[in-house]
Amino acid sequence: MRKPKALGINVVIEASHGVTDRVFNFSSGPAMLPHEVMVEAQAEFMNYAGSGMSVMEISHRSDLFASIARHAEADLRELLGIEDSYAVLFLSGGATLQFLMVALNLARESEAVAYACTGYWSAKAISQIAKIRPVRVVVNTEANGYTDVPAQSEWLEVKDAAYLHYTPNETIGGVEFPYVPDGRGVPIIADMSSTILSAPIDVSRFGLIYAGAQKNLGPAGLSVVIIRRDLLDRSKHSQVPRILNYHDHAASGSMLNTPPTFNWYMMGKVLSWVRRQGGVETMAELAKNRSRLIYEAIDNSSGFYKSPVAHAVRSRTNIPFLIFDEQLYPIFLNEAAQAGLTQLKGHRSVGGLRASLYNAMPLAGARSLANFMCDFQRRHG
Amino acid sequence: MRKPKALGINVVIEASHGVTDRVFNFSSGPAMLPHEVMVEAQAEFMNYAGSGMSVMEISHRSDLFASIARHAEADLRELLGIEDSYAVLFLSGGATLQFLMVALNLARESEAVAYACTGYWSAKAISQIAKIRPVRVVVNTEANGYTDVPAQSEWLEVKDAAYLHYTPNETIGGVEFPYVPDGRGVPIIADMSSTILSAPIDVSRFGLIYAGAQKNLGPAGLSVVIIRRDLLDRSKHSQVPRILNYHDHAASGSMLNTPPTFNWYMMGKVLSWVRRQGGVETMAELAKNRSRLIYEAIDNSSGFYKSPVAHAVRSRTNIPFLIFDEQLYPIFLNEAAQAGLTQLKGHRSVGGLRASLYNAMPLAGARSLANFMCDFQRRHG
Repeated sequence: MRKPKALGINVVIEASHGVTDRVFNFSSGPAMLPHEVMVEAQAEFMNYAGSGMSVMEISHRSDLFASIARHAEADLRELLGIEDSYAVLFLSGGATLQFLMVALNLARESEAVAYACTGYWSAKAISQIAKIRPVRVVVNTEANGYTDVPAQSEWLEVKDAAYLHYTPNETIGGVEFPYVPDGRGVPIIADMSSTILSAPIDVSRFGLIYAGAQKNLGPAGLSVVIIRRDLLDRSKHSQVPRILNYHDHAASGSMLNTPPTFNWYMMGKVLSWVRRQGGVETMAELAKNRSRLIYEAIDNSSGFYKSPVAHAVRSRTNIPFLIFDEQLYPIFLNEAAQAGLTQLKGHRSVGGLRASLYNAMPLAGARSLANFMCDFQRRHG
Repeated sequence: MRKPKALGINVVIEASHGVTDRVFNFSSGPAMLPHEVMVEAQAEFMNYAGSGMSVMEISHRSDLFASIARHAEADLRELLGIEDSYAVLFLSGGATLQFLMVALNLARESEAVAYACTGYWSAKAISQIAKIRPVRVVVNTEANGYTDVPAQSEWLEVKDAAYLHYTPNETIGGVEFPYVPDGRGVPIIADMSSTILSAPIDVSRFGLIYAGAQKNLGPAGLSVVIIRRDLLDRSKHSQVPRILNYHDHAASGSMLNTPPTFNWYMMGKVLSWVRRQGGVETMAELAKNRSRLIYEAIDNSSGFYKSPVAHAVRSRTNIPFLIFDEQLYPIFLNEAAQAGLTQLKGHRSVGGLRASLYNAMPLAGARSLANFMCDFQRRHG
């Protein structure tokens, strides 16, 4: 347990896994990783499975690495119930590269693509793609500051587009879709970077799901792509260069080139950890409980704290919040850091504060933050 | 020291850094990393610089990571004498992605590009680029099995091309250029994945240098690009998507998107280690001495071992070699592995054996392999 008493903070901040030199890290990503995963990875850092080598020193074509890759895919398939009719790819780079690959692979040059614009990241995807494909924005919540998600009945028609892209959770706005859009025959593409494995999903409702690793899956530098196999045909005979081509990556088992092997290995460890915790149902329960603690601290603060997001679409994983007096931000951040609660600064585009609560955040972390928020209010309110 | 006596092996195999559970790893990449780097990284794996977080858990926008990024760039600039007239980029993915980015950024769609084809990797670059740009192959050594490099006077003319691309060292053929080609006004682009930091270079002779990390720089998943700033103008107003655009990456300090932070940190550690060893001059001396030990074992074997490569272009870093009796390969590989000398199998495209000797390979590793080769010959010759 930390000793924030010197600051006048009088609140229980729990130790992270009984280790006092590790903090609770509320970064939106790269984010906290599960403690057990870190302990294991550190222990075998110099000598993986008795090989006398680090995982990062072995060939990606070795049996040892092939086994890591195979287990990671099997665990992801089991966790999300991914059928054989979907390919699972592990690709270099983050979600931003997937913005581009989705458009290149799934739509021909003159073919319209549909996008829902419900926050910073979906807007970013749109701005990248607008240069290379005709984009039809079917819903745009920018005017209300990206704080709500209208029902799909209020959207423009999706039909005749190559696909419909949306962002189930916006990490900066803190807005989470309460529903999966209906593509009416058009494949749904979802950027699940911030929510993958945080709840059960019905994969069969999606044409393609992608996620950058650095929130719920592992260290930055790797993305997962889950793609319905019939959609691979769209890139099979296309002019999309091999290194950006989903079909070619699928045909080579994501080993067209040397993949980020250590990142892949870490992701495998995280997937195995999620399974050991009880899978995505357990993660969903935890996500609900963690976020409720923070929203309660906000809602019970009589206006000291404020959430700008409509109740029905409040994110379970990213909670931006404001303090009534903006002069308190640096004090809040400083005291929180002293108490071992870090990376709570809001995104530079919106300011304020933000608590990101991904799978690796223990309930004790959310509880400690909620306690700290109440105590901070008591002292500064 | 290992105990390979049980196999009848009677030779001194030195311990790697006095640690008996680590092997000498001759992988062509992902390759061995410097022992000191691994020890340091393991020690601070859970808690970097007293932050209570792993490097892989901190924001890429944090001061802590900004400092890592700044130091890595400064060290690389110092090691290679990179002037301010060059930008240094740290980009997701490997050299294969750079094959594509070079062509997209430096040549307009109808503009010819010149390539020297001297091995597997340059041929691969050409095959990727031929789909999107008119490629002029100015020299091609495929007919002699990629075992030699003709003088530039025998090449086709380079002029009028957007650039001239070559591969200073081919890791599979084991062929290293004994000279830097003269572009005669055309920018020279070099894939230095396997030789960067293995010898001093005159950066001013190149338009662009790129290198995947996993041989001399760090774990796979990151590439370094050193680009003459005037060449950034070629992509400035182009239609190259942001995530593939050198100009945009340079303008954002390689943080257009979340970079592979842990990989970048590891590269920084490797760069700092190279500096502590005495820089690229020391690395060049070591490369010469390491490779000489293996070539001597081959040349003094009276034909038991054979190198297929012309003497003048023998690689200092990748040494493919054959045994006169191919039935001995599995025995060699098995006995070598028992002796702690691993990943010596030749590339699947050429077979045989291969010893890759990058910067992190201690002289003791090369000495141990040379001793083992002599002993193996004595027992099986």
